[in-house]
Amino acid sequence: MKFVRFSNGGDAAYGVVDGETVKEISNSPIGQDYSETGATHDLNEVKILAPNPNPSKMLCLALNYGSHLLGADRPTRPQPFYKNTNAIIGPGDPIKLPPDAGLVVCESELIAIIGKEASKVSEADALDYVFGYTAGNDVSAREWQSGADSDIQWWRAKSSDTFGPTGPFMVTDIDPQDVNIRGLVNGVEGQKCHSSEMIFTTAQAISFLSEYVTLYPGDMIWTGTSGTTPPINVGGDVTVELDKIGVLHNPVIAG
Amino acid sequence: MKFVRFSNGGDAAYGVVDGETVKEISNSPIGQDYSETGATHDLNEVKILAPNPNPSKMLCLALNYGSHLLGADRPTRPQPFYKNTNAIIGPGDPIKLPPDAGLVVCESELIAIIGKEASKVSEADALDYVFGYTAGNDVSAREWQSGADSDIQWWRAKSSDTFGPTGPFMVTDIDPQDVNIRGLVNGVEGQKCHSSEMIFTTAQAISFLSEYVTLYPGDMIWTGTSGTTPPINVGGDVTVELDKIGVLHNPVIAG
Repeated sequence: MKFVRFSNGGDAAYGVVDGETVKEISNSPIGQDYSETGATHDLNEVKILAPNPNPSKMLCLALNYGSHLLGADRPTRPQPFYKNTNAIIGPGDPIKLPPDAGLVVCESELIAIIGKEASKVSEADALDYVFGYTAGNDVSAREWQSGADSDIQWWRAKSSDTFGPTGPFMVTDIDPQDVNIRGLVNGVEGQKCHSSEMIFTTAQAISFLSEYVTLYPGDMIWTGTSGTTPPINVGGDVTVELDKIGVLHNPVIAG
Repeated sequence: MKFVRFSNGGDAAYGVVDGETVKEISNSPIGQDYSETGATHDLNEVKILAPNPNPSKMLCLALNYGSHLLGADRPTRPQPFYKNTNAIIGPGDPIKLPPDAGLVVCESELIAIIGKEASKVSEADALDYVFGYTAGNDVSAREWQSGADSDIQWWRAKSSDTFGPTGPFMVTDIDPQDVNIRGLVNGVEGQKCHSSEMIFTTAQAISFLSEYVTLYPGDMIWTGTSGTTPPINVGGDVTVELDKIGVLHNPVIAG
């Protein structure tokens, strides 16, 4: 199934996407029962919003594609970091570059959204705890992350306001290791991979993380980015494309 | 004023503490109006809970006391990291040590709780955005943080489940640079400082952080720890004492 969070001029609502039609539902479908309200909308006439704006946490995998190691050692265990929810924006929302950020890049990713509380779950069971998947752009300020005067931790490198575009849809019942992922800046392809190239699978990552931190419904696991990450600049735009999920497009402006 | 979150056998509620009496209020006082419900309780007969269990984020200052630099360079700007809300526990709740964590230590701290949305606020205005203060123990697994095979980021070193004791009270209208802070393990004092010793004041930290990440009501800013941090062990207990705020005591068990 394909879900959307949207606005039709009023408050945000959730819906089931059926072709070009949005069938409105009573509440977020993540980890909860819901019912159709009877209202329907044209998908092309609503504003699509960030699908899951207030998770209790987002854990993102560093160095999870061999093509993105860039000289670093291949990790022997998943290597997550926190990206904070203040960074979340939706499709079409502008990414705002802080004036002092220096080089900022696109990181196109597949995101797993947790559907039920997960603590110490096995790799075999891990995907049973996933509600669905969406696309994300793990916007990253490289000087703050790893420059000569980098911060001790990646608090603003990864989580400055607007550094977390997500969406457009949440899609259930797909294989997270069978998704094509592309990142484009100003229409030019800068990243391309298939999620089978992950070093740690989505299930392995969820199992490992849940050994230490309980995952709650809505929590988002960003599964890592590939290759060389293309720079983004004020006045440009950036697109993350995942087959089966959709196209996440954001303009880039001065912050 | 002094606030408490508590349970009297039923659901959690908030109250105003007046001597040994808790005057129950309608809702969380953080950034919101509230009213007294008329119910009162004996402070000694309720279970005191974590005062603010679901902030959108917690940012904690590394290396914010000269006595805790331990050979590191004195920071030239605040150096925060995220501690995740899954770690939060309240007074009396057990800290659970993961079997593979190695050395785990106490870090006694003053926490500022944000009361209204803060973005790009000046140092002069920063404390106007604070609702109040509480005590915290930034429990830290040193091998995962800085050992020979440390994680790339401090995701589990600082945020394993139960690694964030907080409480007991939220106190408004105190000077965050005039608080005595002590950390005791098994009753023995291991840390002692005065918050005037911070390298960056609470106001400086809030101003700097808010340049990049919007702070929301309930967000918690942990202002750093002092000196050499005492180890905690299964079967022991740990206490963080802040004058004006109270005593935060937690047993330590196997996770």
